Amino acid sequence: MTQTVKIGKLAMLLASLSEEELLPFASSLEKVEYCQGKAGSMEIQKVIAAVETAAKRNELISEDVYRETHALYHAILESLEGVMRGQLGVGDMMRTVGLRFAVVRGEPYDRPGEGEWIAVAFYGTIGAPVKGLEHETFGLGINHI
Amino acid sequence: MTQTVKIGKLAMLLASLSEEELLPFASSLEKVEYCQGKAGSMEIQKVIAAVETAAKRNELISEDVYRETHALYHAILESLEGVMRGQLGVGDMMRTVGLRFAVVRGEPYDRPGEGEWIAVAFYGTIGAPVKGLEHETFGLGINHI
Amino acid sequence: MTQTVKIGKLAMLLASLSEEELLPFASSLEKVEYCQGKAGSMEIQKVIAAVETAAKRNELISEDVYRETHALYHAILESLEGVMRGQLGVGDMMRTVGLRFAVVRGEPYDRPGEGEWIAVAFYGTIGAPVKGLEHETFGLGINHI
Amino acid sequence: MTQTVKIGKLAMLLASLSEEELLPFASSLEKVEYCQGKAGSMEIQKVIAAVETAAKRNELISEDVYRETHALYHAILESLEGVMRGQLGVGDMMRTVGLRFAVVRGEPYDRPGEGEWIAVAFYGTIGAPVKGLEHETFGLGINHI
Amino acid sequence: MTQTVKIGKLAMLLASLSEEELLPFASSLEKVEYCQGKAGSMEIQKVIAAVETAAKRNELISEDVYRETHALYHAILESLEGVMRGQLGVGDMMRTVGLRFAVVRGEPYDRPGEGEWIAVAFYGTIGAPVKGLEHETFGLGINHI
Amino acid sequence: MTQTVKIGKLAMLLASLSEEELLPFASSLEKVEYCQGKAGSMEIQKVIAAVETAAKRNELISEDVYRETHALYHAILESLEGVMRGQLGVGDMMRTVGLRFAVVRGEPYDRPGEGEWIAVAFYGTIGAPVKGLEHETFGLGINHI
Repeated sequence: MTQTVKIGKLAMLLASLSEEELLPFASSLEKVEYCQGKAGSMEIQKVIAAVETAAKRNELISEDVYRETHALYHAILESLEGVMRGQLGVGDMMRTVGLRFAVVRGEPYDRPGEGEWIAVAFYGTIGAPVKGLEHETFGLGINHI
Repeated sequence: MTQTVKIGKLAMLLASLSEEELLPFASSLEKVEYCQGKAGSMEIQKVIAAVETAAKRNELISEDVYRETHALYHAILESLEGVMRGQLGVGDMMRTVGLRFAVVRGEPYDRPGEGEWIAVAFYGTIGAPVKGLEHETFGLGINHI
Repeated sequence: MTQTVKIGKLAMLLASLSEEELLPFASSLEKVEYCQGKAGSMEIQKVIAAVETAAKRNELISEDVYRETHALYHAILESLEGVMRGQLGVGDMMRTVGLRFAVVRGEPYDRPGEGEWIAVAFYGTIGAPVKGLEHETFGLGINHI
Repeated sequence: MTQTVKIGKLAMLLASLSEEELLPFASSLEKVEYCQGKAGSMEIQKVIAAVETAAKRNELISEDVYRETHALYHAILESLEGVMRGQLGVGDMMRTVGLRFAVVRGEPYDRPGEGEWIAVAFYGTIGAPVKGLEHETFGLGINHI
Repeated sequence: MTQTVKIGKLAMLLASLSEEELLPFASSLEKVEYCQGKAGSMEIQKVIAAVETAAKRNELISEDVYRETHALYHAILESLEGVMRGQLGVGDMMRTVGLRFAVVRGEPYDRPGEGEWIAVAFYGTIGAPVKGLEHETFGLGINHI
Repeated sequence: MTQTVKIGKLAMLLASLSEEELLPFASSLEKVEYCQGKAGSMEIQKVIAAVETAAKRNELISEDVYRETHALYHAILESLEGVMRGQLGVGDMMRTVGLRFAVVRGEPYDRPGEGEWIAVAFYGTIGAPVKGLEHETFGLGINHI
């Protein structure tokens, strides 16, 4: 079985590149559905809510189907594990994040039975709640949907 | 204070893009030192060792200075938190990884006192120890050096 | 040494079965002390407090003896690890739980020197803070008292 | 939306009750597919492998479809979080487990769009690698498939 | 390479000994810079903030240099892992801490290239939010600066 | 309720001070039972086994009573959380530890009903498996027995 569409890599590029930098990847992006957004907060639940709202508003997942919400939720959590690197309590830890995110839905595998998967990527900064005292951070989560 | 050189983003691009895809980022890459490598294993310590060896052989860190080894080690661990998303025991969990990695060293901030920082990125697949039964995974760790 | 009274299994049954379903286990339940209760919240500390209050009000632990409070507290935390499966911040993660719980105190082992132990079980649902968007969850913690 | 078939509760009962104790639940068990098995080890990967093998041999999941393997794997890991209560390295921690497990596949929700879900439950003992020095442990993991 | 100044041990002694008990260690303490303080709270971020404020006010770290803030922050977090033993959400868990802390900055190694390191130690009590229902707790974190 | 005997502080001092440095604490040490030992390894289970063996050989816990083994085991694990600061797999992470440890058993509280408690402390170094590339580490765990 071969992975023909790299939804994780595309989500990473959508979350971290400028529009101009994304141009060479335009043909790959046509093979998937995606949305982008921003979330900045000291509270992790606001980041989760921002992604869920964006994914529903852009019809990447169906609001009424719990299994899609469930798949997205776990992909977000896995992505945030990368962002927070083991400590999932942003504000509780005196840290603030400023993130761009992307949600990508597509069929990564050539075998039709594998169906659709979802990727969630975050890229931005994490640091003390003081402007400039921060460094880059990134996360990627993937789930079957 | 502004972050002028995005060592984390560059590490992620080095770990995941093809040589051709990297061409538009050539001028940014001139501002940093970096190395690339590969690691595939069911054992997490082999992945750590592969990055440490590559970073020392390419003189990204000084082999004799413990504080540089210490900075790199924690950047690797943070990056692996993203790769493993909370469970840092690859083989113990019946999973295998096939990863490309990049280590980037540079001065991200315009203020000279901030000095050098190091970024470690992984990109590849994680999955069952059966070819094809796997999905993408990403990790990024950053530390002052 | 043999375990003659399965306080963990009894706690699980008390937390998840209906009164009618519990009837066949009546004789086993006579060998232990227990209490039951409910807790629904987005905040983990309310769940902990509900169990502690129920256990004290039903005199399963002595309110004044710290070592009993300490034993119960760690049994609750271990049980919640199962409920939350690695992420102990309910509300922080945009999730809500609706749980029934049971606390069982008894002597599981035939050797008298092993004394009393305590078991805490949770059973119910965890999910998005939207009715229906949830699935079952369970946890069990055991400690010597 | 209502949950009409409690696959999690059924998995827990299958993992912990005797055949005789299971009799009152026979009609509920007819609504799902399930298998049972045993795993005893100091190494967590052997426990994972035992469940995966049983689920494939009993055709609860399709061996060739990665998304089913992926769904099962994460349900197993979540269930083991309950068994190990936060430390997923059995042998590494000088502990041994003796577990019965059950895998249940079914449609928990009355709305057809929610499709099939999978539940994995473990019940048994965890303790020092000395017979008798052990107490009960439980775990439950649930995922969409 | 030999470690000649034990900044971790000194931080532990500063956090846990009385002034009189510290007298025999006076000559060792002359080789490092340090500050002491207190923090009692159900909220982990207040504990972090108390240490950061004390370290800046006593000029153990430079307020304007992000890499020093970054080094201190991670040393605090590592130290809190010991205090909380795996659950970094104090108030979320119905627990309260009463802690003394010490921050020590110095050159632990005889080789000059190793430069300065920072140690953060906490010692005090953790327990239920009821006076007396608590036991001792300790943590130590170390980082290069 | 007052804590009159600080078994945690005594364990830390026993694990980290020289015999001469311990002299001023002789009268406090007379109020408790204790043992000391050493453990150096890349494998966490060897460290656990070394403490368990020392505690049994010195009759700090009764080999035959599971509840005492259970109490000690969890105190060791909590102490190792401080040593490893969140990653309990020593060798798996390419790190090695050289530790002194102490186990202290006593009655910390003036109220007789609180009975005996046990404290386990580790002090030593953690680092790369190369001599000198290491820094100090500490851990303390406490449990009722």
